[in-house]
Amino acid sequence: MPVKFSTRDADFESRFQDLLGAKREVQEDLNNAVTAILNDVKARGDAAVLDYTKRWDRLDITAEAMAFTADEIADAVSNCDAETLDALKLAAARIEAFHRTQPIESSFFTDPAGVRLGARWTPVGAVGLYVPGGLASYPSSVLMNAIPAKVAGVPRIAMVVPTPDGVINPLVLAAAQLAGVTEIYRIGGAQAVGALAFGTETIKPVDKITGPGNAFVAAAKRQVFGTVGIDMIAGPSEILVVADGHNDPAWIAADLLSQAEHDTSAQSILITDDPTFADAVAAAVDTHLATLPRAEIAGTSWRDHGAIILVDSLDDAVPLVDRLAPEHLELAVADPDTLAAKIRNAGAIFLGRYTPEAIGDYVAGPNHVLPTARSARFSSGLNVLDFMKRTTLVGCTPESLAQIGPAAVSLANSEGLGAHALSVAIRLR
Amino acid sequence: MPVKFSTRDADFESRFQDLLGAKREVQEDLNNAVTAILNDVKARGDAAVLDYTKRWDRLDITAEAMAFTADEIADAVSNCDAETLDALKLAAARIEAFHRTQPIESSFFTDPAGVRLGARWTPVGAVGLYVPGGLASYPSSVLMNAIPAKVAGVPRIAMVVPTPDGVINPLVLAAAQLAGVTEIYRIGGAQAVGALAFGTETIKPVDKITGPGNAFVAAAKRQVFGTVGIDMIAGPSEILVVADGHNDPAWIAADLLSQAEHDTSAQSILITDDPTFADAVAAAVDTHLATLPRAEIAGTSWRDHGAIILVDSLDDAVPLVDRLAPEHLELAVADPDTLAAKIRNAGAIFLGRYTPEAIGDYVAGPNHVLPTARSARFSSGLNVLDFMKRTTLVGCTPESLAQIGPAAVSLANSEGLGAHALSVAIRLR
Repeated sequence: MPVKFSTRDADFESRFQDLLGAKREVQEDLNNAVTAILNDVKARGDAAVLDYTKRWDRLDITAEAMAFTADEIADAVSNCDAETLDALKLAAARIEAFHRTQPIESSFFTDPAGVRLGARWTPVGAVGLYVPGGLASYPSSVLMNAIPAKVAGVPRIAMVVPTPDGVINPLVLAAAQLAGVTEIYRIGGAQAVGALAFGTETIKPVDKITGPGNAFVAAAKRQVFGTVGIDMIAGPSEILVVADGHNDPAWIAADLLSQAEHDTSAQSILITDDPTFADAVAAAVDTHLATLPRAEIAGTSWRDHGAIILVDSLDDAVPLVDRLAPEHLELAVADPDTLAAKIRNAGAIFLGRYTPEAIGDYVAGPNHVLPTARSARFSSGLNVLDFMKRTTLVGCTPESLAQIGPAAVSLANSEGLGAHALSVAIRLR
Repeated sequence: MPVKFSTRDADFESRFQDLLGAKREVQEDLNNAVTAILNDVKARGDAAVLDYTKRWDRLDITAEAMAFTADEIADAVSNCDAETLDALKLAAARIEAFHRTQPIESSFFTDPAGVRLGARWTPVGAVGLYVPGGLASYPSSVLMNAIPAKVAGVPRIAMVVPTPDGVINPLVLAAAQLAGVTEIYRIGGAQAVGALAFGTETIKPVDKITGPGNAFVAAAKRQVFGTVGIDMIAGPSEILVVADGHNDPAWIAADLLSQAEHDTSAQSILITDDPTFADAVAAAVDTHLATLPRAEIAGTSWRDHGAIILVDSLDDAVPLVDRLAPEHLELAVADPDTLAAKIRNAGAIFLGRYTPEAIGDYVAGPNHVLPTARSARFSSGLNVLDFMKRTTLVGCTPESLAQIGPAAVSLANSEGLGAHALSVAIRLR
């Protein structure tokens, strides 16, 4: 059973701290193995990538066959189920529309001292998108990673996706096409991360790599960070539902399970002011589990990491939410906007009884790549700015340098940096 | 002597690649030592921090004396040189004014399907600012790190600065006061990073840690990343000057030395279309070195890592600049704006003959914490958004869920995620 406790309990703070501090994820130490693969890819390029692909994906191909051809992509798209393809198109259109609302403003102005000042946003030159193979090969994830890059104006979006035994989910290729991916390679693992970071004879290096992957991929991304940019390394998924007693327990139970089914390390938490409702939700979880296809994973997650926290009033939930800083926060209450306005830390907030978190995973529009493990305290979901960078601009005239330069000389001298002082002073003579 | 080569050389590409790939920084492996310190701070709190402070800073204080008092700060400020203090105030005012021009726009709207969508920026709750002690204790760095946090609206900015033998640079305290720092502790090293990340009896934990430090501090920041956010780990400073032959060689030489004097690992590069001018700059560097206080550091950096690249025309410099992606780019040419518009990758650009890079280190206004080691390809200088995070919002009505929900159900089923599908479908009945 999930843990259950109340703010009225004498040991509430220590139990809540345990919940905050619990490590759900087992980290495998693959660093040495990954270093060896990356070095091999750096040294031998395509040949190394193809060797690993043969060994681990059981796929024996030439360098020429690494990239999917336009015909192969078109064939795959034509094999997709029509209804699912329509759903994917709706999702792509809505995600793109939402991401286009993010303001990106460069500026350039002359300040009162006569100094020209600016800040200019430009897209990253080339982005690599990692897509897992097999069961976790999610077309929705392709959309969520590639569309912000496309909206940012990134001219080159290279995707890698392993195809164990040559099998590819055609919806993944359809999603890539919809999202504006410019090249797709049938490779995966640390070797694919290395190919994107260092480049090979066939694959040109990129500037930033994003997208989820297994422990090898995560370790490889950490190791190539610096050579290229990376997105956050996502932890197991989380949902926190704040609900009053006027919800259908079966609805809330489904929402809790929708994150629990991702991974046995996922975490679902319910905060409510109604103890009877809490029990009804727990019972509804068990009812759903009897029929859900991923009941084993979801049930393990719920038992091992689930939690029900009882509060006296929903306002008491606010500081708890901020400390948990959940990836997904559902506010299934009568006035969700007022409650949302009080909350500081959450990756995404789902407002009201008719906004299940899963709507945000697919078609709402905002990104589903969100900060996990309490990092919503200091970081944001994937967005267009993650695929851009900002350059500041300064331009002085002789007159404006004469106005602000002496202060720079004074500060440089106070810091003992003589050449700094000289480089300004020499222009003031 | 610095390397010197031309785009006309047969081996240009290989020499340029060597320049791009050169590792300038020696990384010490302090990970185990730092892990031990962090674990000790986590376990023993204040007591551990005070033990390390006694050992390494030769400062034996109680927990109560860790924080500078308001009187101590006021005393320090009153001891500052008046001219330098005025310069610091000008710098603070200009940095704040520039950072306030960065647009931060939250949004909330209802889309054509009737779905309410939003993105809300909020400040990080608490920030920790690391300031080095001793010679590298730069008041300008305090301003550059703290002011963006203040402009972001961060309610708590805690600063740590080691005071070896009890010695503090009073300008650092003055800068902290000007920049809106809310608390200052006389501790440093990995133990101070641990105190900020985990909290102690005296120091409340923060959500994000920024600021430069030595190898211990850098390793500690890497290790606490996840528990808190961190800024980039900055590498040695760099300047790339693109100059035509109509500059005073002594000015450009001073600019090259202004970065070289930071660190023997710093790098200064000149790109010019005038070979005679290139020689004149090299000679002027030697002339300046005869009198500069930090000539030994600057001279070593220039000899070991400096470079002069000759191009046929300044337009030929553009692709080289983008590949080098310099932290600082100075365009000492007749029409810097046209050249700047062609360049994609640079942390900050200094326009024209009267804009030495050092003006940006102190008083121009934009931040001087900038991406090094070619990371301007994918990252930006420190800015207000680094101290904020973005929460997305979604709100469906029964009607709008009915409109977009079926697509979510379809996609969830195609990904084999039954509880995701159920959580939407159950609301559509």
